[in-house]
Amino acid sequence: MREAFHDQLDRMFRDLAGICESVETAVRLATEALLTGDPAIAERVITADEDIDRDRERVEDSAFLLLTLQQPVASDLRTVVAALRMVSELERMGDLSVHVAKIARLRVPNLAVPEPVRPIIERMAEVAEDMVGRVSRIITDRDIDDALALAHADEEMDQLRRTSFAELLSSDWAHGVEAAVDIALLGRYYERIADHAVSVANRVVFVVTGENPRTVGA
Amino acid sequence: MREAFHDQLDRMFRDLAGICESVETAVRLATEALLTGDPAIAERVITADEDIDRDRERVEDSAFLLLTLQQPVASDLRTVVAALRMVSELERMGDLSVHVAKIARLRVPNLAVPEPVRPIIERMAEVAEDMVGRVSRIITDRDIDDALALAHADEEMDQLRRTSFAELLSSDWAHGVEAAVDIALLGRYYERIADHAVSVANRVVFVVTGENPRTVGA
Repeated sequence: MREAFHDQLDRMFRDLAGICESVETAVRLATEALLTGDPAIAERVITADEDIDRDRERVEDSAFLLLTLQQPVASDLRTVVAALRMVSELERMGDLSVHVAKIARLRVPNLAVPEPVRPIIERMAEVAEDMVGRVSRIITDRDIDDALALAHADEEMDQLRRTSFAELLSSDWAHGVEAAVDIALLGRYYERIADHAVSVANRVVFVVTGENPRTVGA
Repeated sequence: MREAFHDQLDRMFRDLAGICESVETAVRLATEALLTGDPAIAERVITADEDIDRDRERVEDSAFLLLTLQQPVASDLRTVVAALRMVSELERMGDLSVHVAKIARLRVPNLAVPEPVRPIIERMAEVAEDMVGRVSRIITDRDIDDALALAHADEEMDQLRRTSFAELLSSDWAHGVEAAVDIALLGRYYERIADHAVSVANRVVFVVTGENPRTVGA
């Protein structure tokens, strides 16, 4: 009985890691759509998000089944509830990738990102994609050190966001209000993807150690 | 035993309604800080958010205690898990109010909101505050009709956001990039508060009927 439970829990964590990989692809393709202005790539992100939603439902259903049939207590119970929260956050990261893709689509045949801020947006996207990729591995390996290290990547994201704002608000900005608003919102979306990545990693720390590394948002 | 369980569940829902009232106050005060430029009011929102975080922890602790000691199944189990998700979303709504307050504080002694978009932002804030207030009552009364009606208020919010964008991006906009970026982000924050309000209301529908009114985000 307990073994069956832990097998099912392992399968649930493999599913979570799989969703996280789908999110990583979504972040990568949304960024590609943004930087190339290719509407077909933007559409792929938007369509693929339905799969992420469906996968989330599957994990939720199996979590409830596990809670009902196995009645786990103590750390097992907390693990299942943590999985439910992780899947909500992963789905949200998928939604944020869709927001990025939709900004790209809205500006076709133009590019949403003007040349001077392109390196900052590219780096933000790179940091976000890298963080999401690391979270997949953290979920698979339950590696606490990697999970704790992820908070530092988040600091770079905060710094990038400040730099992008300085750029938009400088007197040199020659790309108008629309581009500035797009960049501000894109910065917000990538930052939120990074926040959720840290939060999911923190939940893995909680599952393994029974303690929260710090207060995590939802 | 079952009666004790339902008493504890009722207390948890009263706590959730109480947190929702704190969030309503946060939205109201954050908006007041924004429209008056009073930094003391902004600080109150930021400080009070710690209470919301603490209240969230208390609800989480009692939910886990309930799950562990009472081992609820079927609809009772789903109710406790729904409460855990609701409290996460309420906390997030508090964080979003803090973001609004911080934009107000950042622009002191000026106002973040230029005169021409003031009515739109006021209306967004009004809709958000009203929705949060209605959610408190929906949690208390478990009123399904009110919960389902909340989705319509969300439509007004979407419309307001589109109107604000049209304003920012019109050729008449004479308030510069900084104000435009502030308005775009403020619109996003109020819209997210509204999204979470709908989502919390949908979870009440789920608790009462056992069915989701539509797919809800987290």
